[in-house]
Amino acid sequence: MFTSRPIGYVSSPYENTSDVPKGLGAQHEAEGVLRILPEYEAGLTDIDGFSHLFVLWEFSRSEGFELVGRPPCDDRAHGVFATRSPYRPNPIGLTVVELLRRNGSDLHVRGVDMLDGTPILDVKPYLSSVPAEKLRRGWLAEAEARRK
Amino acid sequence: MFTSRPIGYVSSPYENTSDVPKGLGAQHEAEGVLRILPEYEAGLTDIDGFSHLFVLWEFSRSEGFELVGRPPCDDRAHGVFATRSPYRPNPIGLTVVELLRRNGSDLHVRGVDMLDGTPILDVKPYLSSVPAEKLRRGWLAEAEARRK
Repeated sequence: MFTSRPIGYVSSPYENTSDVPKGLGAQHEAEGVLRILPEYEAGLTDIDGFSHLFVLWEFSRSEGFELVGRPPCDDRAHGVFATRSPYRPNPIGLTVVELLRRNGSDLHVRGVDMLDGTPILDVKPYLSSVPAEKLRRGWLAEAEARRK
Repeated sequence: MFTSRPIGYVSSPYENTSDVPKGLGAQHEAEGVLRILPEYEAGLTDIDGFSHLFVLWEFSRSEGFELVGRPPCDDRAHGVFATRSPYRPNPIGLTVVELLRRNGSDLHVRGVDMLDGTPILDVKPYLSSVPAEKLRRGWLAEAEARRK
């Protein structure tokens, strides 16, 4: 067990949950800044060489968890571990962003879907992808097919 | 801030850190089981349709953090947020696994690189990949080039 500690905060154009594009086909092209706290800046050494990063962050505005729920992009309920629901046993979010540039301890990125002020827990380099032809996307693909 | 709670534990063939393949070109083909605790089983509803999952887990055998360190695959030091080092401010690991089958609250997966008994924090569906041609992999690509 550990207690989370923010290593920084997200600057995002999204002030409220309702501002974040959601649902099928939502594009996450918004630019934002990962403002890493100065005491952690040394940990960013050599991060500039990576085009994409995983950002782990805290769902700081969600209370409690819900094992089964209906996501915004479907009219059917699914298990929390098969969705990106904010109501998780451990309130950790995961977003892949493109690193545009670094300015000291600020990482300018594209693809934020977090709210402004979201606490950042970790940043990791994105090293490899699963080839698209090997991916199956379960209920999400089915929901997309039903909409067509 | 939140305090982490395990939602399950990894069954892995790796008993010790030295057993886990590391370094350049390491393949993670090992099979293992994500043993989700029965009280969270409802959260797995519909997970079977996804071919790949993100697993968030806890570096439960690492103490403290190191902002700059030398990874096993390079003779140069890099920032912790540019590596997968276990010595992180928040001791959270991230692994992409292929879901082979589900048996109740047990997820049989390929691609584990966690130690046996590792606490699992979260499981999320893997929805899309960054195309390989858009990825830059910084110091890792440079270290690979130097080895050739």
